[in-house]
Amino acid sequence: MSTKKINFGLIGAGRIGSFHGETVARRLKDAELVAIADPAPGAAAKLANSLDVANAYNDVATLLTHPGVDAVIITTPARFHTNLLVQAAEAGKAIFCEKPMALTLDDADRAITAAKKAGVPLQVGFNRRWDSSFAEGRAAIDAGKIGTPQLIRSLTRDPGPFGADPARVPLWTIFYETLIHDFDTLLWLNPGAKPVEVYAIGEALVRPDAKGDGFLDTAVVTIRFDNGSVAVAEANFSALYGYDIRGEVFGSAGMVAMGDVRRSSMTLFDANGVSNDTWRRDTDHFIHGYTAQLGSFVRSVRAGKLIEGPTGSDARNALAIALAAIRSVEAKGPVVVA
Amino acid sequence: MSTKKINFGLIGAGRIGSFHGETVARRLKDAELVAIADPAPGAAAKLANSLDVANAYNDVATLLTHPGVDAVIITTPARFHTNLLVQAAEAGKAIFCEKPMALTLDDADRAITAAKKAGVPLQVGFNRRWDSSFAEGRAAIDAGKIGTPQLIRSLTRDPGPFGADPARVPLWTIFYETLIHDFDTLLWLNPGAKPVEVYAIGEALVRPDAKGDGFLDTAVVTIRFDNGSVAVAEANFSALYGYDIRGEVFGSAGMVAMGDVRRSSMTLFDANGVSNDTWRRDTDHFIHGYTAQLGSFVRSVRAGKLIEGPTGSDARNALAIALAAIRSVEAKGPVVVA
Amino acid sequence: MSTKKINFGLIGAGRIGSFHGETVARRLKDAELVAIADPAPGAAAKLANSLDVANAYNDVATLLTHPGVDAVIITTPARFHTNLLVQAAEAGKAIFCEKPMALTLDDADRAITAAKKAGVPLQVGFNRRWDSSFAEGRAAIDAGKIGTPQLIRSLTRDPGPFGADPARVPLWTIFYETLIHDFDTLLWLNPGAKPVEVYAIGEALVRPDAKGDGFLDTAVVTIRFDNGSVAVAEANFSALYGYDIRGEVFGSAGMVAMGDVRRSSMTLFDANGVSNDTWRRDTDHFIHGYTAQLGSFVRSVRAGKLIEGPTGSDARNALAIALAAIRSVEAKGPVVVA
Amino acid sequence: MSTKKINFGLIGAGRIGSFHGETVARRLKDAELVAIADPAPGAAAKLANSLDVANAYNDVATLLTHPGVDAVIITTPARFHTNLLVQAAEAGKAIFCEKPMALTLDDADRAITAAKKAGVPLQVGFNRRWDSSFAEGRAAIDAGKIGTPQLIRSLTRDPGPFGADPARVPLWTIFYETLIHDFDTLLWLNPGAKPVEVYAIGEALVRPDAKGDGFLDTAVVTIRFDNGSVAVAEANFSALYGYDIRGEVFGSAGMVAMGDVRRSSMTLFDANGVSNDTWRRDTDHFIHGYTAQLGSFVRSVRAGKLIEGPTGSDARNALAIALAAIRSVEAKGPVVVA
Repeated sequence: MSTKKINFGLIGAGRIGSFHGETVARRLKDAELVAIADPAPGAAAKLANSLDVANAYNDVATLLTHPGVDAVIITTPARFHTNLLVQAAEAGKAIFCEKPMALTLDDADRAITAAKKAGVPLQVGFNRRWDSSFAEGRAAIDAGKIGTPQLIRSLTRDPGPFGADPARVPLWTIFYETLIHDFDTLLWLNPGAKPVEVYAIGEALVRPDAKGDGFLDTAVVTIRFDNGSVAVAEANFSALYGYDIRGEVFGSAGMVAMGDVRRSSMTLFDANGVSNDTWRRDTDHFIHGYTAQLGSFVRSVRAGKLIEGPTGSDARNALAIALAAIRSVEAKGPVVVA
Repeated sequence: MSTKKINFGLIGAGRIGSFHGETVARRLKDAELVAIADPAPGAAAKLANSLDVANAYNDVATLLTHPGVDAVIITTPARFHTNLLVQAAEAGKAIFCEKPMALTLDDADRAITAAKKAGVPLQVGFNRRWDSSFAEGRAAIDAGKIGTPQLIRSLTRDPGPFGADPARVPLWTIFYETLIHDFDTLLWLNPGAKPVEVYAIGEALVRPDAKGDGFLDTAVVTIRFDNGSVAVAEANFSALYGYDIRGEVFGSAGMVAMGDVRRSSMTLFDANGVSNDTWRRDTDHFIHGYTAQLGSFVRSVRAGKLIEGPTGSDARNALAIALAAIRSVEAKGPVVVA
Repeated sequence: MSTKKINFGLIGAGRIGSFHGETVARRLKDAELVAIADPAPGAAAKLANSLDVANAYNDVATLLTHPGVDAVIITTPARFHTNLLVQAAEAGKAIFCEKPMALTLDDADRAITAAKKAGVPLQVGFNRRWDSSFAEGRAAIDAGKIGTPQLIRSLTRDPGPFGADPARVPLWTIFYETLIHDFDTLLWLNPGAKPVEVYAIGEALVRPDAKGDGFLDTAVVTIRFDNGSVAVAEANFSALYGYDIRGEVFGSAGMVAMGDVRRSSMTLFDANGVSNDTWRRDTDHFIHGYTAQLGSFVRSVRAGKLIEGPTGSDARNALAIALAAIRSVEAKGPVVVA
Repeated sequence: MSTKKINFGLIGAGRIGSFHGETVARRLKDAELVAIADPAPGAAAKLANSLDVANAYNDVATLLTHPGVDAVIITTPARFHTNLLVQAAEAGKAIFCEKPMALTLDDADRAITAAKKAGVPLQVGFNRRWDSSFAEGRAAIDAGKIGTPQLIRSLTRDPGPFGADPARVPLWTIFYETLIHDFDTLLWLNPGAKPVEVYAIGEALVRPDAKGDGFLDTAVVTIRFDNGSVAVAEANFSALYGYDIRGEVFGSAGMVAMGDVRRSSMTLFDANGVSNDTWRRDTDHFIHGYTAQLGSFVRSVRAGKLIEGPTGSDARNALAIALAAIRSVEAKGPVVVA
């Protein structure tokens, strides 16, 4: 096995970009972060400074021409993902792209084609697959321990209180950016099944004042698959008790349950009863999974092809459900998946 | 407080009738079982013999004329419930009726009116309200600990393997008889909210061969409430791991989770890992709840009016959701609740 | 099977006596409480009134001459147990005696002999055997699921804060009255093994000011058995988080863990994390076990001999460990069990 | 902060040495493994080859003269630890030494003095302190959440079946090498308390045939502290259900429980009940803790002094309990801690 270090360029120095950058710079032994690009004034330079990275740019094009960059991590706002991905592919860089990879099926196809044409690995940031609880659940399903999946559940509850400005949240974010994780999870936990129909409800229960502007913070999505199984995905932006990510697959022979908001097995018993602290941030909850995710990507970059992770096609399949969910909310009834 | 013993007549000596009869005869201190009626040849006599009950009848009318009978428990097949309930009310008996109290809203109204007119207490067998886990969940909600309910879940998974003959299962049983528990639970855990729209999916995943005959063994029902909250009820007839009854209410300030298929806190650690035995029968899982349910009814009978339990109106409200679910399956889309 | 109701006389109307009286009067279908005796002025009459019991006495002798009394429950202070038990046996009454049955081995022998001579069933109040978690643990051991016991633990932590007056607590209460439960549990969970050596530590950590008077509120007792297994029993009078009763048996093939201070499976998730309420009183925690305990005794009374429960010999065996523990504290080192 | 990479030399290429070597070579970003020494023919070379390490030696002296080596990890058999530690200190290397640091108090003093004289950081491998569950338990204690510790428990159960040859296990290994972890844990979880008396029982229950040769595979150690608190440490070499490491601290205001043999929150529900897989190896269970442990050491090496970890004094304090336990087994009674 080649042991060449993989040199990364980071595109996007926001919250998750900074975290992925830190993962590469501080936690991944076989990788280096060599360049950061972000158009926001000073953002790339600031992060580069804190992570001892040599090159900081305000434009992505320069980063892509850096010959030392083997692979890029795209963590910009979602609407820029596809174009940047295509540019990176054309520059011959291996690509790790945050979810959603695209906001339309055409863009998804464009991204997949570009990576394929360039012959570069393309991995998408569905990080739950790398969490030990979810990974063991999938392994149990693969081992036949629950038989055929029949009823599936995946949920995302972001830690509250919700403090963002609804006016700055892009339309349909709960489907494009939040539930896209659950859609991938449901597909991944129901191997071989194809979604056929989607019924979605979207509400603004956390910020009802913003509903008139199209803001949604709560959603329930029911998905029928071609094998008869039924899945429910659920999201809310303000779980006061923490960052709650769970999955459940009930099948003909049993069930697996995955995920727990409890932070560790340390349990406190006091005058208030029995209690556990909870996860409050994705980057705490999934710190080992996030590292494993990029560690796998490093191995793929070395191998010159994706060896494990969620593919562009996986991203397209999850997107198709998100788009159907949006149409279902508009139609106020079930819709067929494209 | 009056301490008069309440004398019961049991109408229906089937599985749950026999169990309720045993509860009265063997576990309820303040009650006696004095008569049993069942049209099946020998059924009443056999149960009466095993429970040391003096009077066994093949017809209900005779039981209802027995002057020593203060209250009846109706546990016949569901389609007979309403008429028997009305007869019992006219005979001046206090009534405990198994779910579903009726199969149509008209019948539900007829039952409610009859009990009201006769001035007799009428309690319906939504036994989950008497389970300590669910009761504590409701108490936490009442105490404001989770704020306003936003996302609610209730599920019923009957212990498998499913061994009944689908041809002998009445149409829509999964909604009328199984999910009716969940519908009551969802209403009870979302105090004051009214269901406005229902979307239901019904499948035959356990016995796909029987689907052509209208048999359903798996269902997912989504319910929108007038306060914006969304509930999901789910049922399956064949959980190989046991009798799984759970509820979850997520609100603006937190969440309560209720129910656990684990039979006790006894945990075994062996070469196969860590394990717990599970509940395999409703009458084991809810034995204390079933006793508490009838204990409460005894207090109501003494008081001459229902003091706690699920009312005829509660039964009507749950039925309205079941009927909407059935219409939704037929319409293949969401329907308005009557 | 005989279905004769068993008529009980209660000797001692204190806290646990009142509770057992209520169990007989209100929860045990096949039993009636017909008489109560307590020398404290008004105590018997007050309890009799609240439980609708006909006969209240200030002296036990009168109760024992009541021909309608089939069986007695002895719940006086421990130092009176043996003499009352012998009197009751001589009066031909079946006997349920709270722990400890005796405070010396001679008294234990005297009690056993009296019951044997009178031919009356004698059951001792080691109620943990009737808790479902402990009962399932013992069943797993009997089924060979953990192999041969090697390391055993049993603990009693009474709910705090401790509010009693240490000066009114008899010397060595923590061994005679509290840990006696654990000693019986350890013997019962290690079938066939005989204790050979005991090392005990006693401390006053809750009320260090009272240690000079011999008061002990905390104890750790190590017991070596003849099969090489080692057990640790532990007690404390002031668990601020509730009434914590647990057991653990590690064996050559696995382990069973029993008991949980959590009150139910209802779990609250809120801004403070994940939490469960706890048991705060023995009579709540073990309400079903206490009823089952006396239900079993009723069956024994009907049968004319003890059919399940802890025997006088069991009580003697637990006492032998308690006495050894006391000697060990005095000797400041391990002592041989008598 | 300096960001200089720390270059490590590994002394001892056995099981845990290979694992620590891999941690440095593959998981620690700020460190490199530059040399390995092991007297066993080929052992150093083999490990060096698999980890791409340049220098492999059969003798430690050569490794210690390598000027590029900043720090050493000592993972030889325990009896060599002290001398190697002293040599490494004299060579000016920072030292991470596996437990036990020494087998006599004189040797412990010699080690501490050597590191102090050389001015090099010395950290000892009590890795449980780096496990998140234990670390959170200690944090809760520090935050005053359980009040003053009164009853403490720490246990080590190695995964079975035990397959080693008892004849090759050094005498008293269960105290020197296994329970030494628990002794450190108990001291660490009871801040400021000093052990005053120890009573230990040692048995050969897994391999009773080897007891005659002094082999012990099971032990229970009771420790009294100067603040009145009492601790119990327990070990067994053959837990068939996995690698079970737990701790419990009961205090005047509550309790913390730490550790869980369950491998993840993934839970399987099937015909056998509810189950979780378990940890089977220390290097799986504590992989993140082991990495954190050496990560902290790297920071200490950079800082030129120990900033967090267990010190030579901590190792000496745990050893003092181990030595007392051995004396107690020999004396068959409690002994005073040196």
